[in-house]
Amino acid sequence: MATHRPIEYSQASAEVRAVYDDMLATRKTDYINNFWKVLANDPANLKRTWESLKQIMGPGALDPLIKELIYIAVSVTSQCPYCIASHTASARAKGMTDEMFHELMAVVGMANETNRLVAGYQVEIDERFKAG
Amino acid sequence: MATHRPIEYSQASAEVRAVYDDMLATRKTDYINNFWKVLANDPANLKRTWESLKQIMGPGALDPLIKELIYIAVSVTSQCPYCIASHTASARAKGMTDEMFHELMAVVGMANETNRLVAGYQVEIDERFKAG
Amino acid sequence: MATHRPIEYSQASAEVRAVYDDMLATRKTDYINNFWKVLANDPANLKRTWESLKQIMGPGALDPLIKELIYIAVSVTSQCPYCIASHTASARAKGMTDEMFHELMAVVGMANETNRLVAGYQVEIDERFKAG
Amino acid sequence: MATHRPIEYSQASAEVRAVYDDMLATRKTDYINNFWKVLANDPANLKRTWESLKQIMGPGALDPLIKELIYIAVSVTSQCPYCIASHTASARAKGMTDEMFHELMAVVGMANETNRLVAGYQVEIDERFKAG
Amino acid sequence: MATHRPIEYSQASAEVRAVYDDMLATRKTDYINNFWKVLANDPANLKRTWESLKQIMGPGALDPLIKELIYIAVSVTSQCPYCIASHTASARAKGMTDEMFHELMAVVGMANETNRLVAGYQVEIDERFKAG
Amino acid sequence: MATHRPIEYSQASAEVRAVYDDMLATRKTDYINNFWKVLANDPANLKRTWESLKQIMGPGALDPLIKELIYIAVSVTSQCPYCIASHTASARAKGMTDEMFHELMAVVGMANETNRLVAGYQVEIDERFKAG
Repeated sequence: MATHRPIEYSQASAEVRAVYDDMLATRKTDYINNFWKVLANDPANLKRTWESLKQIMGPGALDPLIKELIYIAVSVTSQCPYCIASHTASARAKGMTDEMFHELMAVVGMANETNRLVAGYQVEIDERFKAG
Repeated sequence: MATHRPIEYSQASAEVRAVYDDMLATRKTDYINNFWKVLANDPANLKRTWESLKQIMGPGALDPLIKELIYIAVSVTSQCPYCIASHTASARAKGMTDEMFHELMAVVGMANETNRLVAGYQVEIDERFKAG
Repeated sequence: MATHRPIEYSQASAEVRAVYDDMLATRKTDYINNFWKVLANDPANLKRTWESLKQIMGPGALDPLIKELIYIAVSVTSQCPYCIASHTASARAKGMTDEMFHELMAVVGMANETNRLVAGYQVEIDERFKAG
Repeated sequence: MATHRPIEYSQASAEVRAVYDDMLATRKTDYINNFWKVLANDPANLKRTWESLKQIMGPGALDPLIKELIYIAVSVTSQCPYCIASHTASARAKGMTDEMFHELMAVVGMANETNRLVAGYQVEIDERFKAG
Repeated sequence: MATHRPIEYSQASAEVRAVYDDMLATRKTDYINNFWKVLANDPANLKRTWESLKQIMGPGALDPLIKELIYIAVSVTSQCPYCIASHTASARAKGMTDEMFHELMAVVGMANETNRLVAGYQVEIDERFKAG
Repeated sequence: MATHRPIEYSQASAEVRAVYDDMLATRKTDYINNFWKVLANDPANLKRTWESLKQIMGPGALDPLIKELIYIAVSVTSQCPYCIASHTASARAKGMTDEMFHELMAVVGMANETNRLVAGYQVEIDERFKAG
């Protein structure tokens, strides 16, 4: 159970409701997921987090679906079950196929493996990689 | 300094050289980076790791550049300086622009932030996200 | 289910009971939580862990409530659901308000975000921060 | 070396300079650290990150010094050398004593230890901790 | 619930069944655990992962039981509940005693603690440890 | 540079010197590494950490060399360069061969990989693994 009760739309203050309205319009959905309803107990953090997310996850040089895949990669590496479940659903809704998901998992697994081989063998950074 | 001396091409056994040759041909380069040269101290692990990487990072449902971005996302979350440096170079070589890199960083930062908000507020997984 | 059955007070050996007694007296409670009851299967580790915890979490230059907040920050970053639940309860008992909790979460989220931006951009440590 | 060159005040665009000015005024300093100068290559992220940080790290229910300690706790758990160095300097500037630092380290170490004991023993959350 | 339905032996393609057969023969068991049945949705990854695991976890310079202990140490540090549960069962089957498990947990906890003390105090690597 | 100056034997207080003496005698060496010399700035933490380490890393159901391998596995997973360097040296001194090290690295890499596959596929714990 969450540390705070989820705040439903009908109970929300005007400040929270404004965020919910923007979220529903932006996402073209009538569903607000638990993360936001719990975070709504801190309206300032709700607003700041939503506005950052909206700005960051929207279209740009990277497609929104690609951004969802990156989000999953981080959430799997951090071991966050909620985030994995919710962003896997978002990625599906944006067109992630089974084949994409399998390839994503293979890359994430491989990267976590080689991250540790590099650390354990104490490999030094090649001069040519230092230029950034 | 690495726990083991890097094994240069000229010093390599036939077994290691066969991996190096495949790597150079696959990557269309004449450069072998430190990770592989150090891992070559364990030829079985070198071969297995290279063959997995070649299979996983090649073209598929996801573009090789997208796979590099995912690799960077994991390496940044795991805090692996070598991996960040080497895969940032690979991603550049495959066409990553500055704008893509900035967006990648923004998503990785945001995901790491919300991964912890979810955990700290002990948010329960929405029923609709449980279907997988 | 835990790897080992929790050891209740009534079943405990004299060695374990001595730790339980000290814990109940120190904490002014009649409740021993599952962590300790499971760890009691290894009496040496139980005793060592409890004695370290008692010494570290008591009053000092930092207030015990502040120490609980720091404990939560670590547990959220490590993604440990049990630790988050139990130390959030402890912090509440020591006076953590909702407002404190929300600010704690905001800082923990922000720090996890910037930890990754710094790594991804490969930012070098400023000379003035090297003096320690 | 960072992936992007630090942008000095004298080279900065009006957009970046506005953030720098606010930062210098808010922090009552004439020094901008490398993190911000590198992040300035992405002005939108610079502005968003600074504004979030300013809002989150300022006075509130928790003292700014306490927030710095929490920041260090996260950065140490995440193993981010830059973040540890820069926020240790910030905490010193806000009044962190040696004794506070030692206690902070002891709590962070202890929490990381017990986070793993709990996971390894697969301890179940006590009913009384589930109410949040 | 897993993102993909587990694939039972009776439903499996010839490709997947060949992996299952090798697994059952190698492990001298008639049980395939959920991880493999879910991973079977991506036959190439199933085969590659199983073949790596079989090669890595078998007898060598380190005993298979010791390898299981190392696997648990990593899984506890990464906070992976499934992996902790399944590899604790494997280690038990290979002869891990309660005393070994308790000592393993103590080392894992201690290492996680000192990993952070070292980071927080920004300890420099001793010259004599640099030779690898 | 460490946050605190290392305290050399000749400068140490009687309290710190007693810990150093016990360390030198227990380890049959005349060398104290930087970690302890820096931690000596907090004598209570030095003493507690050393006594725990001595108790935990000594002979028991697991051989001291095996305990060093487990320590390395954790340190690599946590990405702690100092800890990897110092415990690799300790393990070498206790008899770790190259072959053991390579196998250790392979297991640590593999475990980190499968930890993420399990999380990403949201695999449920098998009933038979729940008994602990």
